[in-house]
Amino acid sequence: MKFKEWEGFEEGSWTEEVDVRNFIQKNYRPYEGDDSFLAGPTKNTTKLWEMVMELSKKEREAGGVLDVDSDVPQTITSHAAGFIDKKLEKVVGLQTDKPFKRGLMPWGGINMAIQANESYGFQVSDRVKEIFTKYRKTHNQGVFDAYTPDMRKIRKSHIVTGLPDTYGRGRIIGDYRRLALYGSDFLMQEKIKDASLIDGEMTEEKIRLREEITEQIRALKDITEMAKSYGFDVLKPAKNATEAFNFTYLAYLAAIKQNNGAAESFGRTATFLDIYVERDLEKGILTEEEAQELVDHLVMKLRIVKFTRTPAYNEIFSGDPVWATESIAGMGLDGRPLVTKNCFRYIHTLSNMGPSPEPNLTILWSTSLPNGFKEFCARYSIMFSSMQYENDDIMRTTHGDDYAIACCVSPMRVGKQMQFFGARTNLAKTLLYAINGGVDEISKEQISPKYEPVLTGDGPLNFDEVWAKFDNMMTWVADKYVNTLNVIHYMHDKYYYESAEMCFYDTNVHRFFATGIAGLSVVADSLSAIKYAKVYPIRDEKGIVTSYKTEGDFPKFGNNDDRVDDLAKKVVKVFMNKIRSHHTYRNSEATMSVLTITSNVVYGKSTGDTPCGRRYPEAFAPGANPMHGRDCTGAVNSLASVSKIPFKHAADGISNTFSVVPNALGKDEDLVISGEIKITGEIPKDALK
Amino acid sequence: MKFKEWEGFEEGSWTEEVDVRNFIQKNYRPYEGDDSFLAGPTKNTTKLWEMVMELSKKEREAGGVLDVDSDVPQTITSHAAGFIDKKLEKVVGLQTDKPFKRGLMPWGGINMAIQANESYGFQVSDRVKEIFTKYRKTHNQGVFDAYTPDMRKIRKSHIVTGLPDTYGRGRIIGDYRRLALYGSDFLMQEKIKDASLIDGEMTEEKIRLREEITEQIRALKDITEMAKSYGFDVLKPAKNATEAFNFTYLAYLAAIKQNNGAAESFGRTATFLDIYVERDLEKGILTEEEAQELVDHLVMKLRIVKFTRTPAYNEIFSGDPVWATESIAGMGLDGRPLVTKNCFRYIHTLSNMGPSPEPNLTILWSTSLPNGFKEFCARYSIMFSSMQYENDDIMRTTHGDDYAIACCVSPMRVGKQMQFFGARTNLAKTLLYAINGGVDEISKEQISPKYEPVLTGDGPLNFDEVWAKFDNMMTWVADKYVNTLNVIHYMHDKYYYESAEMCFYDTNVHRFFATGIAGLSVVADSLSAIKYAKVYPIRDEKGIVTSYKTEGDFPKFGNNDDRVDDLAKKVVKVFMNKIRSHHTYRNSEATMSVLTITSNVVYGKSTGDTPCGRRYPEAFAPGANPMHGRDCTGAVNSLASVSKIPFKHAADGISNTFSVVPNALGKDEDLVISGEIKITGEIPKDALK
Repeated sequence: MKFKEWEGFEEGSWTEEVDVRNFIQKNYRPYEGDDSFLAGPTKNTTKLWEMVMELSKKEREAGGVLDVDSDVPQTITSHAAGFIDKKLEKVVGLQTDKPFKRGLMPWGGINMAIQANESYGFQVSDRVKEIFTKYRKTHNQGVFDAYTPDMRKIRKSHIVTGLPDTYGRGRIIGDYRRLALYGSDFLMQEKIKDASLIDGEMTEEKIRLREEITEQIRALKDITEMAKSYGFDVLKPAKNATEAFNFTYLAYLAAIKQNNGAAESFGRTATFLDIYVERDLEKGILTEEEAQELVDHLVMKLRIVKFTRTPAYNEIFSGDPVWATESIAGMGLDGRPLVTKNCFRYIHTLSNMGPSPEPNLTILWSTSLPNGFKEFCARYSIMFSSMQYENDDIMRTTHGDDYAIACCVSPMRVGKQMQFFGARTNLAKTLLYAINGGVDEISKEQISPKYEPVLTGDGPLNFDEVWAKFDNMMTWVADKYVNTLNVIHYMHDKYYYESAEMCFYDTNVHRFFATGIAGLSVVADSLSAIKYAKVYPIRDEKGIVTSYKTEGDFPKFGNNDDRVDDLAKKVVKVFMNKIRSHHTYRNSEATMSVLTITSNVVYGKSTGDTPCGRRYPEAFAPGANPMHGRDCTGAVNSLASVSKIPFKHAADGISNTFSVVPNALGKDEDLVISGEIKITGEIPKDALK
Repeated sequence: MKFKEWEGFEEGSWTEEVDVRNFIQKNYRPYEGDDSFLAGPTKNTTKLWEMVMELSKKEREAGGVLDVDSDVPQTITSHAAGFIDKKLEKVVGLQTDKPFKRGLMPWGGINMAIQANESYGFQVSDRVKEIFTKYRKTHNQGVFDAYTPDMRKIRKSHIVTGLPDTYGRGRIIGDYRRLALYGSDFLMQEKIKDASLIDGEMTEEKIRLREEITEQIRALKDITEMAKSYGFDVLKPAKNATEAFNFTYLAYLAAIKQNNGAAESFGRTATFLDIYVERDLEKGILTEEEAQELVDHLVMKLRIVKFTRTPAYNEIFSGDPVWATESIAGMGLDGRPLVTKNCFRYIHTLSNMGPSPEPNLTILWSTSLPNGFKEFCARYSIMFSSMQYENDDIMRTTHGDDYAIACCVSPMRVGKQMQFFGARTNLAKTLLYAINGGVDEISKEQISPKYEPVLTGDGPLNFDEVWAKFDNMMTWVADKYVNTLNVIHYMHDKYYYESAEMCFYDTNVHRFFATGIAGLSVVADSLSAIKYAKVYPIRDEKGIVTSYKTEGDFPKFGNNDDRVDDLAKKVVKVFMNKIRSHHTYRNSEATMSVLTITSNVVYGKSTGDTPCGRRYPEAFAPGANPMHGRDCTGAVNSLASVSKIPFKHAADGISNTFSVVPNALGKDEDLVISGEIKITGEIPKDALK
């Protein structure tokens, strides 16, 4: 074996080159039993968690933020080692030198950093303000320097929202397991090898990539230094479970020290780390209690990841979530379940430390999962309401069996695929623009070029006319939307490159260009109303349509009625194809999500009355959900409508927030819905409160 | 008229859009007389110049640098207004707040800034060191992050030298006249208009350009603020000669506050400013003495432009020249000479204040220039030895009649063409590499891939074999050279963009990719020796050829002998075509210069013995010059050989340093040589000492 730390593992291609999946496949032990082996929290765990809860209480009392560093911009190595209680912690590492002290991250945008701090009563130092205005341009400045007037308009009018142009982009999952399996020295050598192959004609693409690899190597050096301050030598592979847990977490810690993206997900680590646990259990150097303690302490750290956000951010996301998503279970391509005891242990943290919104525990659900695990999940879901389910049977066909979920629904092969996060276009508002020729129904400003408004006066809207104009308006907004994202991601790479995440990726990474839409059910119902009922526009004194009067009934999305479901499908497909028609930065692959778990309220506030009967500022339905109360023919029909949305045109994920009253689906049915759908449990963001 | 400041000027397309050439053509008054109108220095001028000389003396006594700012990185607005003597100065503005106090410019490279300061006993503050290592990446860091191992090798082995990878790139001439003619507000509006047209599919090229335009507008705002601190409102056009001189200089001052490129040239301003002088003279609000005083004070400022350089830099350039080149005279495309009284006044500064290496007064020479001016130039050349001549009759055909010279020989249309400066490849060393299969004759290291060395053992070198291998080695070095430059200029744009220069350019600028060669006469003579005499290689113990024994005579470059001159021509053409075969950054147009005015000594020190009989570390001939002492058939033959070098394959300029003993060319001959050649007078760099 190349490293003595690998003794006891079965060899494979993973010993020759970076291939964590191969390591897992060669070494993991599927577990088909039940949860009877699980251990409760150790005294240390309970004590530590009490300290965390106490700090959490103080934080709430302090108005949301307990402490921030106002003078040291955060980097991987900017802060000395920090502990909750050094003696008790089995998994170490904090974002700054003190628990609940938030870091200062001005690279995404200094104004946002200043605002975020001020809103909690803290002041960014003049020194940092000077550096990040005079000497170091931020991502945000870069973006606004390049935005066209149209881009500013679509942003300001909220037809496109949530653009990651003021902080980190997130939705990138470093394969943090690599640090444990290989150590930083091997990873650096591999990066040097990769760089040596990027030679010949120096196109900009190649120059940028060469510079990025150097930044990645620099990050690996910094991570090594940071880990050393916590007493770990990560140059070599982890030699036991304790090191494996710590190395994996320290690699992730570097990422969240460097970047404050909206979704800083953790990956798919449970089964990987189980291999180390099993080796140590076999050697007799670890007990089940100790194994659970490692898991509890790791998860505890993921629960207290914090960034300083602005109130506006918190409003959109109903809190300040991190989406430290951990993806659990799923099936292997060879038919073996990827369920190990560690999958149970991860979920068991909900019992040992109580429910928590973070990490976003995401079960990669397959009908083939072992019954013991299925039963366990169902039970814990009911008990703690803190788990999310996604359809592994669908995603495995496109993403293999070592993908993880970034944020809520975005699948990516760990260490091989990343995402240029693209927030979303408000298609309901796009429909209103089509009716008004691009005049905003709220601000009354002309946003798009002066397209022709509907010609039917006060008479009922004509479906064919509205569709043609909607199609045209989608063409316009898709163009502006994609190109705004092109600017944003160019500037991210230029001013806020995630070297601490990308160093745990393959050098030749696959990039998704992840667009999104909001208001799908509003659009479908509105189009259905225009087509199947009579919708009369109501105009203001200037002739701008600001509301609608609807006569007659019409099919509504969420009742398994093809007349309207087909409209939803068509909108998704047509809009996605318009997205695809554009140049995407770094030749990334365009995808789309139908996802708004929490921001649906905000969308409602920025969209006037809609032809479906929704009245301003009523919230949209979240994600791909039918509008509340309109899916009146039962849960199964509601889910069936959503499941018709074609995954190939919404490959970044479709979310359906679904609350199940116990026994609502009948006693004998599994909580499994067929079709192309992921069921996302609403995470109780206030679980800690 | 759009602006009242334009009253008295003839309208043209220049009143509608930025077009300084049109303004000149519509308004300038050619002067065909002699120099009898010229005025001596005013008392103020003499007094100021004495103060400058005194400071200059103190600077020499202090070891080369009198004072530096060690804590405030220099920007357009970083320093308060500075004066030599506020009451006496008619043209105001200093790089920092005190004369002879040099600015701190770490953007190109913090290490170079630290070294440069330390070599003169100054310390860059820890604050600045921290900012430019932790938070603000420099151009130099970017370059080295992307360099391939081969790029580092060609740099270290000196087969390619003088690469602008540690400081500003220079060789960019903003059309500083625009600030005087239009004012900054109009220029900003034009830039905003330009930006609005860059829309549609956001390729990286477009995103970068949009960001650059914003930076240009930001620079124009900063220039406005800086000018205000000197008491000038540059938002509006200049209303008289005093303002025109000051505005033009302040625009240039912004450039040299922001950028420390090796050649920060001034442009072609004399005839432009003459229009303002003529208007004021006519109005009776200016006298000849006052006009000369403005010129003297402007030129005085150009004489004291200073950057902090490293000793290594000073060694290459035999001092720390700025090449604040001002291009004077030339002919108009309509046949009228572009000679005005101001051209006389500029040159007359040599008399009023004594000779000086800066500004690099460059006469754009045409056989059609008025005799009065020709005679005046000849007389002042003989008196002060501080003028450079370039062939306007050649350059006008490709560059029109509003180009200027950047550095020594690089022509560019003012405000329309810029250059990616590329230093040069040592072709003499390339020939030695060809003979040794890519092993460096000095370090004995393998630099290129292991090519086959010459196969003739100790027997005489075979010309066909050597040529084939030389051709091959030129292919290799051209590839590495061009791609190294691609990296450098990508990083210049990324980390040290010259917004204060580019804001005075058209938005859609033409970019030259200016490569260069050194050692042409050494190569030509060496190839000639191999072809026409017998050259025996002398090998060291490892078989590496380290010297040569030559039997028999051979034709030498500089004697108008086609046998060898054709070899020189062929080398230029073949190498240039290899350069052209490559991708060049931003699709710039590849050009080449045969130019080394002062660095020929350094080239000699890094090149072993050559087949022509030159012995290490003997200096190369400068530029395209024949080797010293080998052009033994007279000056005319020497010049004739050089003039055969095809300008179309060396369009960035061919320099020939040529000292004329009075009467050497005969009494009745003009100092004009036909053919494609520029005659460059050696500038006495120690003129101030």
